[in-house]
Amino acid sequence: MKLYGYWRSSASWRVRIGLALKGVPVEHHSVHLVRDGGEQHQSAHRARNPMRQVPVLELDDGRQLTQSLPILEYLDQAFPNPPLLPSDPYLRARARALAEVVNSGIQPLQNLATLQHLTQLGVDRSEWGRHYIYEGLRNLQQMAEATADRFLVGQEVSLADIALIPQLYNARRFDVPLDDLSLLRDIEARCEALPAFQQAHAHRQPDANL
Amino acid sequence: MKLYGYWRSSASWRVRIGLALKGVPVEHHSVHLVRDGGEQHQSAHRARNPMRQVPVLELDDGRQLTQSLPILEYLDQAFPNPPLLPSDPYLRARARALAEVVNSGIQPLQNLATLQHLTQLGVDRSEWGRHYIYEGLRNLQQMAEATADRFLVGQEVSLADIALIPQLYNARRFDVPLDDLSLLRDIEARCEALPAFQQAHAHRQPDANL
Repeated sequence: MKLYGYWRSSASWRVRIGLALKGVPVEHHSVHLVRDGGEQHQSAHRARNPMRQVPVLELDDGRQLTQSLPILEYLDQAFPNPPLLPSDPYLRARARALAEVVNSGIQPLQNLATLQHLTQLGVDRSEWGRHYIYEGLRNLQQMAEATADRFLVGQEVSLADIALIPQLYNARRFDVPLDDLSLLRDIEARCEALPAFQQAHAHRQPDANL
Repeated sequence: MKLYGYWRSSASWRVRIGLALKGVPVEHHSVHLVRDGGEQHQSAHRARNPMRQVPVLELDDGRQLTQSLPILEYLDQAFPNPPLLPSDPYLRARARALAEVVNSGIQPLQNLATLQHLTQLGVDRSEWGRHYIYEGLRNLQQMAEATADRFLVGQEVSLADIALIPQLYNARRFDVPLDDLSLLRDIEARCEALPAFQQAHAHRQPDANL
């Protein structure tokens, strides 16, 4: 399979974590979101994804999948071990909901395209981004208290932790204060001790530009 | 079970469609998103959902679930017939991705809280909303061409159609031009012919204020 992604894209990063946890090899192809006005706007990438976003996972037969959480659900069905969701139906729903707090509750409001649009309209993009990331992570922590243990939902890594890690990286880029978020930071430390999370980190990708 | 929702909330509406398709009875409780500054900000609702959003599904044992797509996935596991996702793994992923184009690609950028924030910053909320809804629906239609038949993914209703219907209603509220979106409008007409979609419609809810 081929993964079209970008080192610092949090959605690409989530899929890299899922692939690494399951030990599934892929060919990585970089779509540079900034260079030359953004390669995601070029016709080659628009043919893969009209949304002009990464990641795109190309299957062995050439068919393509978009949207990080559906891609992770696909991988979880195709490569069941280790699972990315708890087996208990209530806990599965809680893990998915925590992932959605990041995926639909924070990320769309602070992604590159939204921030570029806000800047054009004269809005302070840093303040905007900081607001949504801080509020979103506070809510995430409060929601997670019902299920958190070693990870956001119990003893095992789930979709929720996969969504958390790139979002905390973004929080630091926006200088979001993390003092009140010790539950999330403790879980982050446990994730970062795992080889799969290390391998998937933005800074470890060949297209990283630090 | 109890569903805490609001007639015109698209996320609540999605869950109502899922419940109606499966014939699962629930007690509906209205959380008025506008009256008295918004009942979602009151402590009773914040205890249910720190995100201050609807819907919240309360299970028979009192445990609570949030986020419309995870709730629909939960219902699909608990009440398998009719399924809300295709059985083929590729088509499942495509249906989930189309639902996410609405759930994370459009809705967060045009929901009430975001628009209220933009107005405070002096941004024209109508123009902003129209932009994201139109671009998002155009992308959705283009992505759906690979799988659409009677519905967005093949011959059966899926999560993708459930996400589409409230978003098209919002599009009309924002005066988004739908002339180029005939594929989506044809599928909308097929959905609206089904009793479950009729029963779940915003205007049919007891808290509707037209």
